[in-house]
Amino acid sequence: MSTRPARTLEIVPNPHPDRDYEVTMTVPEFTCVCPVTGQPDFATIRIRYAPDQHLVELKSLKLYIWSYRDQGAFHEDVTNRILNDFVEAARPRWIEVTGDFNVRGGIKTEVRASHGKRPEI
Amino acid sequence: MSTRPARTLEIVPNPHPDRDYEVTMTVPEFTCVCPVTGQPDFATIRIRYAPDQHLVELKSLKLYIWSYRDQGAFHEDVTNRILNDFVEAARPRWIEVTGDFNVRGGIKTEVRASHGKRPEI
Amino acid sequence: MSTRPARTLEIVPNPHPDRDYEVTMTVPEFTCVCPVTGQPDFATIRIRYAPDQHLVELKSLKLYIWSYRDQGAFHEDVTNRILNDFVEAARPRWIEVTGDFNVRGGIKTEVRASHGKRPEI
Amino acid sequence: MSTRPARTLEIVPNPHPDRDYEVTMTVPEFTCVCPVTGQPDFATIRIRYAPDQHLVELKSLKLYIWSYRDQGAFHEDVTNRILNDFVEAARPRWIEVTGDFNVRGGIKTEVRASHGKRPEI
Amino acid sequence: MSTRPARTLEIVPNPHPDRDYEVTMTVPEFTCVCPVTGQPDFATIRIRYAPDQHLVELKSLKLYIWSYRDQGAFHEDVTNRILNDFVEAARPRWIEVTGDFNVRGGIKTEVRASHGKRPEI
Amino acid sequence: MSTRPARTLEIVPNPHPDRDYEVTMTVPEFTCVCPVTGQPDFATIRIRYAPDQHLVELKSLKLYIWSYRDQGAFHEDVTNRILNDFVEAARPRWIEVTGDFNVRGGIKTEVRASHGKRPEI
Amino acid sequence: MSTRPARTLEIVPNPHPDRDYEVTMTVPEFTCVCPVTGQPDFATIRIRYAPDQHLVELKSLKLYIWSYRDQGAFHEDVTNRILNDFVEAARPRWIEVTGDFNVRGGIKTEVRASHGKRPEI
Amino acid sequence: MSTRPARTLEIVPNPHPDRDYEVTMTVPEFTCVCPVTGQPDFATIRIRYAPDQHLVELKSLKLYIWSYRDQGAFHEDVTNRILNDFVEAARPRWIEVTGDFNVRGGIKTEVRASHGKRPEI
Amino acid sequence: MSTRPARTLEIVPNPHPDRDYEVTMTVPEFTCVCPVTGQPDFATIRIRYAPDQHLVELKSLKLYIWSYRDQGAFHEDVTNRILNDFVEAARPRWIEVTGDFNVRGGIKTEVRASHGKRPEI
Amino acid sequence: MSTRPARTLEIVPNPHPDRDYEVTMTVPEFTCVCPVTGQPDFATIRIRYAPDQHLVELKSLKLYIWSYRDQGAFHEDVTNRILNDFVEAARPRWIEVTGDFNVRGGIKTEVRASHGKRPEI
Repeated sequence: MSTRPARTLEIVPNPHPDRDYEVTMTVPEFTCVCPVTGQPDFATIRIRYAPDQHLVELKSLKLYIWSYRDQGAFHEDVTNRILNDFVEAARPRWIEVTGDFNVRGGIKTEVRASHGKRPEI
Repeated sequence: MSTRPARTLEIVPNPHPDRDYEVTMTVPEFTCVCPVTGQPDFATIRIRYAPDQHLVELKSLKLYIWSYRDQGAFHEDVTNRILNDFVEAARPRWIEVTGDFNVRGGIKTEVRASHGKRPEI
Repeated sequence: MSTRPARTLEIVPNPHPDRDYEVTMTVPEFTCVCPVTGQPDFATIRIRYAPDQHLVELKSLKLYIWSYRDQGAFHEDVTNRILNDFVEAARPRWIEVTGDFNVRGGIKTEVRASHGKRPEI
Repeated sequence: MSTRPARTLEIVPNPHPDRDYEVTMTVPEFTCVCPVTGQPDFATIRIRYAPDQHLVELKSLKLYIWSYRDQGAFHEDVTNRILNDFVEAARPRWIEVTGDFNVRGGIKTEVRASHGKRPEI
Repeated sequence: MSTRPARTLEIVPNPHPDRDYEVTMTVPEFTCVCPVTGQPDFATIRIRYAPDQHLVELKSLKLYIWSYRDQGAFHEDVTNRILNDFVEAARPRWIEVTGDFNVRGGIKTEVRASHGKRPEI
Repeated sequence: MSTRPARTLEIVPNPHPDRDYEVTMTVPEFTCVCPVTGQPDFATIRIRYAPDQHLVELKSLKLYIWSYRDQGAFHEDVTNRILNDFVEAARPRWIEVTGDFNVRGGIKTEVRASHGKRPEI
Repeated sequence: MSTRPARTLEIVPNPHPDRDYEVTMTVPEFTCVCPVTGQPDFATIRIRYAPDQHLVELKSLKLYIWSYRDQGAFHEDVTNRILNDFVEAARPRWIEVTGDFNVRGGIKTEVRASHGKRPEI
Repeated sequence: MSTRPARTLEIVPNPHPDRDYEVTMTVPEFTCVCPVTGQPDFATIRIRYAPDQHLVELKSLKLYIWSYRDQGAFHEDVTNRILNDFVEAARPRWIEVTGDFNVRGGIKTEVRASHGKRPEI
Repeated sequence: MSTRPARTLEIVPNPHPDRDYEVTMTVPEFTCVCPVTGQPDFATIRIRYAPDQHLVELKSLKLYIWSYRDQGAFHEDVTNRILNDFVEAARPRWIEVTGDFNVRGGIKTEVRASHGKRPEI
Repeated sequence: MSTRPARTLEIVPNPHPDRDYEVTMTVPEFTCVCPVTGQPDFATIRIRYAPDQHLVELKSLKLYIWSYRDQGAFHEDVTNRILNDFVEAARPRWIEVTGDFNVRGGIKTEVRASHGKRPEI
């Protein structure tokens, strides 16, 4: 289990900054490690955001998600950390991150957090 | 059929108490006993809450749900009791509990109760 | 085809009358008779209500639904009659009854009626 | 391809005119003819309305829908014409007509139009 | 990879301009080329609009969509460009364009943009 | 609960008796009465047969199925009785009858019986 | 209701006559008229065949299917007639025709007929 | 955790012993206890059999399944034990028992065992 | 529309040539051009094969599929051509190619061809 | 990327070695690393076997699957390696291993291999 910080998200200019619109990226291949048991966890991460001046670059998002592979992370915390990193990198007008984790102990957990006010689109 | 009180839910600190976010836990393996007929009942319990200062610890939730296995419980009552116990333990900003019970007598019953005001997330 | 009135719905005290909550009962086995052609009709009846001082007792609901088996009934009328009987018996804070009838003449009909103002739950 | 007007919709009294309620009729067997190419078109028509003093009689609706079989009709126009005919015949408090047409040229088209203000039910 | 502008959308008069209604066109066969890698991309494009004085002619929409086949286009940009072209051609009261792109690098992307204020229908 | 025999199935000539082919009729609206408890039972009946000299006439099948509405019948028995009546009436080259009954006591029951040797079609 | 014979199916040479392979064509837009009641019937027709020297030309199949629109036809008969016409036109090594008809009188009917011996593919 | 033997299955005469036919009973509400961890396990049990002289009585099957509620049982063993008990009680011509257990440790297990030779039905 | 031959498939050694096993590759992003109308066609191609001494290299398969983008191709012919190219490149013990093409003229076409004898796996 | 051998599978005695039966274990959480690109791969592994004298112990299977997390592995090879390891550890009468891998480069790959002759169950 590693304690390295996650990789940095990279950005590109938003080609239509004068309009509110919404981008949804679904990543079914998120995996990290339970900090208590050391066992792997699996989740689908869904990021939905209204870009302001920048988009997140797709390949850097892929590498960012991969960088959690050896990290210890609790469900509620890691979903909020992804949200924070995305906000810091791209400064979207609004963003929602959902972590939909696989069953553990017969219980399925989903965490959903957001930042900013969703524009009407 | 037992009359022991249900096990206690345990809590851990919320790592992001400064933000409204939502946690959904789905437990498809709830079973209790009908107080009238003594026959087993089965349900999926879904708990959706916005944590305040504490999260409910996952393993204690699993044990709490198991502790109903020998309890006599009506559908409407047990759903509200789970809600009350969760509120008392974790004091969430908002919480909704849904009990989705299997068909009995050709009728399917679902009970949904909530506490507090749901934040916009 | 019978003209007997439907059986009476029985009630039990609401164990949590101090809280608004919602009970949904789905009955996929409703059958009655078309008053014009004498042919059987089939429907799924869904009752969703916020109880006030009383719940409807499950077994009496089953017998009430069965009592339509030989009754002549039009789709729009019978859905409203079930709503009226439920209101008279249990005096819920809010109730919605939906009758989802099987295809006749290549047309599928669904009727939805409500009584009272739905509380925010 | 015919230019006869569509058959007339017939009505029956609403047995519960003192209450707002909603009737949804789904007709998966609508067919007409493209006025440009002469080729048959197929659609599912869904009519959702809140009756006022009258219901539309089911059998006359079936015959009304059949009467389009040889009519030339564009997607957007025919959906609005069905809405107009229904309004004229039954004077509902609110009505929505949706025409969900099969794929043509690799494109699927759905048209949705309404009349009046939907009551809260 | 071509840099030709997309084909022009053609219009026909709206047969019911006095009423707000909604047309949804779903095109599952959109393909263009990634400007960075030269690799083909695939998407389902969904256009939902409330026409004003004009409808978009169906066959010209098909040809318009085909004209992207050799164009280089980023997901976020091309969805907004389709929206702009549609607005310029048909001047609808409201329009929403959604581009639902196939998985690339294990990530699925959906872009949704709109123009104007959606009427209540 | 009635003990009248079921209605008679009527037949029409098979228009293609020189060829083995297969007809499947699915009836989702079968209902009878439990001989022990007097409670209604519901099932989907599926009849699959290879006609010889006769087909079963569709309307008489509908009336035959309806005639079970007041009959007392066990799941295993009634499925075999329908098979026997169909064999007696139409003398098919092969026939299979499946009764797919709704859940009772938390248990779903399906009964499948056949007569004759299925031709290769 | 017309008694004109159906349109003729046209053929094109099989580009790979030296190999057994299988072509499946599904037509969800078949409609004809009930010879008894004059009411329209709807079906999905599925044709699965192993071509010999010829394929059936796609556009002529479309027109052939359309030519049933005004024909009176029973379910069992019309499925066999389509099989016969296809055999006569294309002389396939093996062919199966399935007619999957919409619900009439609460009963769904599917007819499946074949000709020749299916090669192992 | 109990070590009492399971309840006895009761039988009734087969009303059609002269014919091979098949009965499938699906029980989605099986629960027992893991002998190692003491944790509850959940499964859907499916029993498919061709009766000989006897059927298994439905209510006794329900009670038999319930009697595992406090028993310790491994997946592979309990599925075979149910098979053995059923064979001993009803002596069917053929029987297959499938235990479809819920996910444990991220792994889903299904066990399928049979006795006798399945007749062609 | 191009007449260039398709790109060449490349191969790598089979790491387990001493065992019969099966590889299924599904490509939902096949597109070519109709030789008659010049319009684009879309299909999902599924290749299922039992390798002998070689596997087909995944990236070269992707480029091979892309090389049809500007090719004119009929449904039946192109499916057989892909089969032939795969056989020539990898010499599998058995292979089946299925082309599942999008609806054209209201008709969906699927073509399935194979080469060699499928081993029991 | 590691080159350590995978963890060892542990076994327990088969409680019913005198009977042929079948165990299916589905593991949706397999992940390894592409030996060429270093990128993570994801798959669902399904193991179906007829045990002889031993079962594979569930927890050791979980740890065995986890041990691939840092291994470089090609799709076809790793599926066969899991099969070999399982055969060596448990010596089943028959076993089939299927690796169902996520989309890469727009192509989905499934590998299926088996060992021994499947008994009739």
